[in-house]
Amino acid sequence: MRKLGRVLRQQDWEITLTLVEQDCLLRIVDVEPGDVTRHRFGLAIDVGTTSVVVHLVDLIDGRVVEVASSYNAQISCGEDVISRIIYAQKGGLEELHQKVISTINKLIAQLAEKSGILSDKLEEVVAAGNTTMTHLLLGIDPANIRRDPYIPTAAYFPLICAAELGIKVNSRAPLYCVPCVASYIGGDITAGVLRSEMYKSDELCLFIDIGTNGEIVLGNRDWLVAASCSAGPAFEGGGVKCGMRAMTGAIEQIAINRQHYEPEFIKVIGGGKPSGICGSGIIDALAGLFLAGVVDRKGKINGELKSPRIRCHEGVAEYVLVWAKESLTQADIVLTELDIDNLIRAKGAMYAGFRVLLNQMGLDFEQLDRFLIAGGLGNYLNIESAVVIGLLPDIPYDRFEYLGNSSVIGAHLALLSSKLRQEGERIAGSMTNIELSVSLDFMEEYTSALFLPHTDFKAFPTVAQLMNKA
Amino acid sequence: MRKLGRVLRQQDWEITLTLVEQDCLLRIVDVEPGDVTRHRFGLAIDVGTTSVVVHLVDLIDGRVVEVASSYNAQISCGEDVISRIIYAQKGGLEELHQKVISTINKLIAQLAEKSGILSDKLEEVVAAGNTTMTHLLLGIDPANIRRDPYIPTAAYFPLICAAELGIKVNSRAPLYCVPCVASYIGGDITAGVLRSEMYKSDELCLFIDIGTNGEIVLGNRDWLVAASCSAGPAFEGGGVKCGMRAMTGAIEQIAINRQHYEPEFIKVIGGGKPSGICGSGIIDALAGLFLAGVVDRKGKINGELKSPRIRCHEGVAEYVLVWAKESLTQADIVLTELDIDNLIRAKGAMYAGFRVLLNQMGLDFEQLDRFLIAGGLGNYLNIESAVVIGLLPDIPYDRFEYLGNSSVIGAHLALLSSKLRQEGERIAGSMTNIELSVSLDFMEEYTSALFLPHTDFKAFPTVAQLMNKA
Repeated sequence: MRKLGRVLRQQDWEITLTLVEQDCLLRIVDVEPGDVTRHRFGLAIDVGTTSVVVHLVDLIDGRVVEVASSYNAQISCGEDVISRIIYAQKGGLEELHQKVISTINKLIAQLAEKSGILSDKLEEVVAAGNTTMTHLLLGIDPANIRRDPYIPTAAYFPLICAAELGIKVNSRAPLYCVPCVASYIGGDITAGVLRSEMYKSDELCLFIDIGTNGEIVLGNRDWLVAASCSAGPAFEGGGVKCGMRAMTGAIEQIAINRQHYEPEFIKVIGGGKPSGICGSGIIDALAGLFLAGVVDRKGKINGELKSPRIRCHEGVAEYVLVWAKESLTQADIVLTELDIDNLIRAKGAMYAGFRVLLNQMGLDFEQLDRFLIAGGLGNYLNIESAVVIGLLPDIPYDRFEYLGNSSVIGAHLALLSSKLRQEGERIAGSMTNIELSVSLDFMEEYTSALFLPHTDFKAFPTVAQLMNKA
Repeated sequence: MRKLGRVLRQQDWEITLTLVEQDCLLRIVDVEPGDVTRHRFGLAIDVGTTSVVVHLVDLIDGRVVEVASSYNAQISCGEDVISRIIYAQKGGLEELHQKVISTINKLIAQLAEKSGILSDKLEEVVAAGNTTMTHLLLGIDPANIRRDPYIPTAAYFPLICAAELGIKVNSRAPLYCVPCVASYIGGDITAGVLRSEMYKSDELCLFIDIGTNGEIVLGNRDWLVAASCSAGPAFEGGGVKCGMRAMTGAIEQIAINRQHYEPEFIKVIGGGKPSGICGSGIIDALAGLFLAGVVDRKGKINGELKSPRIRCHEGVAEYVLVWAKESLTQADIVLTELDIDNLIRAKGAMYAGFRVLLNQMGLDFEQLDRFLIAGGLGNYLNIESAVVIGLLPDIPYDRFEYLGNSSVIGAHLALLSSKLRQEGERIAGSMTNIELSVSLDFMEEYTSALFLPHTDFKAFPTVAQLMNKA
């Protein structure tokens, strides 16, 4: 309204109104002189526990104009959602809130610089994050998320002015948060299901998002069940001695020779010397070491094999992936038995989650038509390696699909279409959350999964074949 | 939502939700633990060009808990709306906006101190002001108000968060601005008509608000016409040599003896020595001097009368109301011929306005059932004096009614009742604005009214009687 008098007269009473639907009403977000309908922009944001990814989207043709991503500045307050919730409870709520807002603003500034599109031109924002991240984004106390009976303050969030939170976009731009399902099934998963289109598929789909928390959704157009299992940070490089996130210097692919136990092929992100190993590399390494017989089914390193790479350091057996002289850090890059224990627990939790959800619905892996893999890890994951270690089930490889960062793509879809936004709300409302932490079935499945690839070797016929090849 | 998780559990899931209707939806403004429905508060604000008046209102029983008022800090940028608009055009819009907001916040702080009610407990705000004041309150450029064809940017204003303007109330409290009719018929007049109830009266009413601008509304339940005439600041003490606003030290009542031309009775606001004379005192003085024969029908002082109070100073005839030794300022308090000229022009403009509106509708003063007087001046105005000088028409005195500050009372009503708010919107929408500045009829009526009481003496029979008494 402040601009109205001037803007109306600026191009002889020709104006462009930007309208946004809110509570079944159309709201005016901006008024500009002349016809500028060809240039409308918005933001889709994946608010991850570790990383924040922003798509600058052209609202007219739907294309991604520019992408920016960075670590979530909240990392300094704790690596996973539980430690963030505890930090918030100790008086750090406002700090956590400000940290994610400043992370987003930093990315908006980068996007503005790269694209030349001023932040004032950003007229709509859609954010998808897990339930804790969404609470912290909005400055809502997440304490009840980890208190029995695990009920978040909200799962659906009202449309508010992004500027009210300090997000530096058009002062009237609304912020839509993709709705959550439960304390540990957040808006990122709703967005992922939206992006996967499994909610309208006739085929039986299993969607997984591998991160610090592993979320699993099973179903099709008629029904959806979801569960979350705390896989631990191993797949993001956490809890692993030489682990690191998938960034420059990380080993993302590796193979182990079965005769002389030497690494055969190492691919480093960025192409330089390695400084550590990220999730997909860790999975490759463990699979390779297992097939080579360096690691047994219980995850123990065979110390009797003759290789300088197999050794014991401070009482813990380890395998040297890269010698100090070839490493950027000038220290050996190793995978230890403790790392392998963490990895087995992580993959065991995920696999047990798949099984419990399938059991609940009276289904088996064979009946899955599509197995959809989301998460940053998914972009580099070697399916064979993941099956060898028993992270993924041994089903025909063509049933696996990579979705990429399905959270930001789902947010992008919700930004472009109010119909898809409603679809997301319907998805969140209809998804049944199964609490694994109280499931006896889960404990049993989990225990069975603490072997490579699994206690039940018959469930992994192709792994047996691969082992026999050697 | 930020409070929800905590508040829900604080008194065993018993909460009080504060809901506000907006665009036909109920919006949650606050959530508090337990049943606190007995204590709800809001603010009704009259944003005047000269003064800002705030009522702290108990929303449950409707009573005024506390009142605060002060000058509008914008006065330093100009005394009337035209000079404020010019100031805004010269880059002072933001300053004017901030000044009225800081005035309101100062009053809110005073109310909090007097009542013990924290500003966070103020859950709703209704403001009424003239069109320019409403624009400046919202930070909207008022430039087009004084540009032909005199169309304000808006007459109806969307409900916004008061906090968005920096008003220090509950961060979710909505601000409702009473709608305006035209550039010079503002929300204060809509509020006044609401308070007068003329919009539902079977009787023919004429409502006037005497201030720097004089606004007039004529009508009943079936129709309403309105006009504004720039009376000038004389009735607020402006443009008068010893004039001042109705505050401590101002002469508010005065009578003149017809034999010896001495002042007989002087009432000073606050009871001390006078330092000047305010609107109601000026009207009394002029009426008294006219009836005593000191001032003639053209407004000229009769220099031949024998009184030390009648003199000529720097070529201008004047009458000494108070000698220097009895004045707080230790200077004579006088009424000059130039002051009288200004007064006659001011009262002539008001009276011409009444006539034009009546003429337009084919009506005469006799047909008026009620004559409603609003504005700060109305609280002290001596009806007889106002009729003697021809500011008010010579109709039976019992048809005159004082309404007090009808703007703040109307805002108070709109604060308590969404039905009355809608009624106000209906009133603003149905009122026909008549532009006097382009009316030939007005110029003719105005010229005829530049006499005491009027060119047409027959229209003022009781004034003739009063003159004959002497």
